Amino acid sequence: MTTEPLPATGAWRETDPAGDRRFFTFATDHPFAVEDGSVLRDVTVAYETWGTLNADASNAVLVCHAWTGDSHASGRAKPGHPTPGWWDDVVGPGRYIDTDRWFVVCANVLGGCQGSTGPASPHPDDGRPYGSRFPVLTIRDMVRAQAKLMTHLRIVQWASVIGGSMGGMQVLEWAARHPERVVTAIPIATAARHSAQNIAFHEVGRQAIMADPEWHGGNYQEQDRRPTRGLAVARMAAHITYLSETALHTKFGRALQDRSVVTYGFDADFQVESYLRYQGSTFVDRFDANSYLYITRAMDYFDLAASYDGVLANAFRGSPSRFCVISFSSDWLFPTTESRELVRALTAVAANVSFCEIQTDHGHDSFLLDEPEFHRVLAGFLDGAATQIGLPGR
Amino acid sequence: MTTEPLPATGAWRETDPAGDRRFFTFATDHPFAVEDGSVLRDVTVAYETWGTLNADASNAVLVCHAWTGDSHASGRAKPGHPTPGWWDDVVGPGRYIDTDRWFVVCANVLGGCQGSTGPASPHPDDGRPYGSRFPVLTIRDMVRAQAKLMTHLRIVQWASVIGGSMGGMQVLEWAARHPERVVTAIPIATAARHSAQNIAFHEVGRQAIMADPEWHGGNYQEQDRRPTRGLAVARMAAHITYLSETALHTKFGRALQDRSVVTYGFDADFQVESYLRYQGSTFVDRFDANSYLYITRAMDYFDLAASYDGVLANAFRGSPSRFCVISFSSDWLFPTTESRELVRALTAVAANVSFCEIQTDHGHDSFLLDEPEFHRVLAGFLDGAATQIGLPGR
Repeated sequence: MTTEPLPATGAWRETDPAGDRRFFTFATDHPFAVEDGSVLRDVTVAYETWGTLNADASNAVLVCHAWTGDSHASGRAKPGHPTPGWWDDVVGPGRYIDTDRWFVVCANVLGGCQGSTGPASPHPDDGRPYGSRFPVLTIRDMVRAQAKLMTHLRIVQWASVIGGSMGGMQVLEWAARHPERVVTAIPIATAARHSAQNIAFHEVGRQAIMADPEWHGGNYQEQDRRPTRGLAVARMAAHITYLSETALHTKFGRALQDRSVVTYGFDADFQVESYLRYQGSTFVDRFDANSYLYITRAMDYFDLAASYDGVLANAFRGSPSRFCVISFSSDWLFPTTESRELVRALTAVAANVSFCEIQTDHGHDSFLLDEPEFHRVLAGFLDGAATQIGLPGR
Repeated sequence: MTTEPLPATGAWRETDPAGDRRFFTFATDHPFAVEDGSVLRDVTVAYETWGTLNADASNAVLVCHAWTGDSHASGRAKPGHPTPGWWDDVVGPGRYIDTDRWFVVCANVLGGCQGSTGPASPHPDDGRPYGSRFPVLTIRDMVRAQAKLMTHLRIVQWASVIGGSMGGMQVLEWAARHPERVVTAIPIATAARHSAQNIAFHEVGRQAIMADPEWHGGNYQEQDRRPTRGLAVARMAAHITYLSETALHTKFGRALQDRSVVTYGFDADFQVESYLRYQGSTFVDRFDANSYLYITRAMDYFDLAASYDGVLANAFRGSPSRFCVISFSSDWLFPTTESRELVRALTAVAANVSFCEIQTDHGHDSFLLDEPEFHRVLAGFLDGAATQIGLPGR
């Protein structure tokens, strides 16, 4: 462990306030072998919980965060958590994922930068940041770390595993690899494999970061530098894909920013430019550039069917889990067609599956927004799960 | 004029072979006032022509190139033209725009970098490159430069003005401002104003260029530097928007590049990554980074209705021109809805308008590809124009 704090990179550091985070460390005796063949030691998972685990541990729900999320799914902003929980309107007492009933767990993914071991963490051998020494992880590696946490928390089955976007990939991985531990699965705005277009957008973001001379081959931390300009550009490009054309048109159109006429220059004349620049510049304060590279790569590599002879249905053959697949009509990053393919695969092996496409103009980000129909579907399905499990009524 | 060649930036330079380019210089006595209020002197337009202007100059067709195009619409690759004409299968003897019948003109846009005056050109005052001293131009400025060329070529009316994407914006500008000079207008895969999403994508590209330390505030040429990494990233992001999700899926899917398994690293494992990197790296050899900034800005500022009391139809009131509006079903950069708005505006003032949406999976780039139905529509409409004008039959 380092005694000097590591240079700031946007990642949470051990010298920062813990906030609501708790920490579980494994692989202290035996190393954790990851899918690329390398091993990690002293692996930490930062997580948060809400509600109370009941006596038979039957009310545990795992919430899986998306790409740039973290363990702070619910709760106020406070030291250690610069923003309120990313699903604060969904997870909490009396909310759609009701913490008066469920024991909810959310862990920062392995490779992330908000408390779990990632490229900005100190390497146990020398206390220097991993940087580019960190192995490229997969969604399966992330889920295997969550499974270690699950055992640590004395949970045998998740009443539900829920997540959107990359969180949904984790949901599918859980359901495929550990069907006996997943009573219900709610993959939202996701896909069983990353599309060519999405790989392409990720590659643009990665190239923007790696083109920044301050990236220093991934070892910027040791030089106390940060590729903030490249990371901001990457975030800007990605952010467009989270919204729909309609949402951008409705929100901004061609409205000008703090001016009545264009300036004939390269300032942010248009509100949409100003908004994007803000998204880029604030992101670099809370995210590590290497984590951005590693997590996008994990998503690119996700192709569930590939390890089941190329047949997606085989991933779910004999699954006892109940599925609720949710997509959003204006999501062009993970369009409804991808959810339909998943539903088709589940149906082909007679899995128990419900499917709902929510009509909305808000694009991929809808799963993070106030979408009443989505919330009704989510809460309704969880009510059914509670009945199935035999939890007392609300 | 400089005696030393300017440093290479991807722009054509006076010391390079002219190829098929011809040059017309204006504003030698009186400066050319552009829309932002500044003036240019000694403005050069590089252009090419094909076919023969007939005695009454009634067979002239103006082809307007898209963003990264140039005057070389047709013809072989040769010194001065590293690639064949960008519309070589469309423009030529016996082709869809038949140069046995039409006298075709294509000019590099003002602000471009393939022979027309742009930010990489020498400033007439000091012979040093304009760099960031170049004014931000508009689509109207580009068209006004084409109008100067038109007069120089002793053409009074264009039998047709044709262009896709940014070329289509020029078509609309021509038809709106100079209706008496436009017999027919063929705006393809375009819009009467640039959308918020498109401005957003442009802004990402610009930020990628301006984030490159080699950009030097736009004056990289004087330091013999080039922001190639930023420009490559900008091109990669833009290139995704030219294709459709289906096209990317069909062309690449998740196929790997020269390997049978993923490498768990940041090399271009996937063909789509390799393809994008190639697009980025070759682009920087033929395009100037500042031209990229200036031309994207011209598109962003394009909003034809804005100078007609916000009512698009007013731009075409009383127009004698015949319009053929063409869109492509899978184009998400300039979707069919934008063409329909244009058609609605034209119809509202009883303009003569045909509209055709071509069914194709090839996205925005379809207007540059082998699309038989598109070519049939184009050739058919031009046949009608020839009859209207009274040209002899083919």
